[in-house]
Amino acid sequence: MLTNGGCPKTMLSIRDALEALEGKWKLLILFALSAGPKRFKQISKEVHGITDKTLSKELKSLEANRLVKRDVYDTFPPTVEYSITEHGKSLEMVMEALHYWGLSHRREIIGKN
Amino acid sequence: MLTNGGCPKTMLSIRDALEALEGKWKLLILFALSAGPKRFKQISKEVHGITDKTLSKELKSLEANRLVKRDVYDTFPPTVEYSITEHGKSLEMVMEALHYWGLSHRREIIGKN
Repeated sequence: MLTNGGCPKTMLSIRDALEALEGKWKLLILFALSAGPKRFKQISKEVHGITDKTLSKELKSLEANRLVKRDVYDTFPPTVEYSITEHGKSLEMVMEALHYWGLSHRREIIGKN
Repeated sequence: MLTNGGCPKTMLSIRDALEALEGKWKLLILFALSAGPKRFKQISKEVHGITDKTLSKELKSLEANRLVKRDVYDTFPPTVEYSITEHGKSLEMVMEALHYWGLSHRREIIGKN
């Protein structure tokens, strides 16, 4: 376990992270974008179960936290693309850790039932 | 970035993890318990801002996911203690990744404002 288990300062940074990533969608959206820039409809298709209203809200929050960038291209009609920023990419370790833990959790809980 | 960015199977395990850990409290409670077993009131004191009602609900959900164990000791009045399970301890990498990312996020967002 963390050698500083329970340390209030470490808890503060975990809290900061959880607040920026709160909800069950943000990391999934970022993971979808980690493969490359995408349009709204593509993201909506890849992140199963998300409604357009929620996706739109989550993208705005991710933009505000500098995790996602929104680009508008001067085509007709205009094309809008979303991409992950460098700061968003820095979540790689978090996503990887969640991925591996999710696998072991499935074995522990779902596999045993 | 993850070499398998956007891969549907990886997204599934990230989703499993996010569902088990949803909300802003569970990881903070587990982090508090990572220092050793604690009583309800101690956890409530260390996890700033959580109400007793929410803490009680979250502990039940953590128990159901085998992340926390509840022990009742035959004292008078009975003592109840919560501790982190081995499966809960396997979240170490997730907490560590969130801790470091939380630090860098604070520099990126809060530090620049």
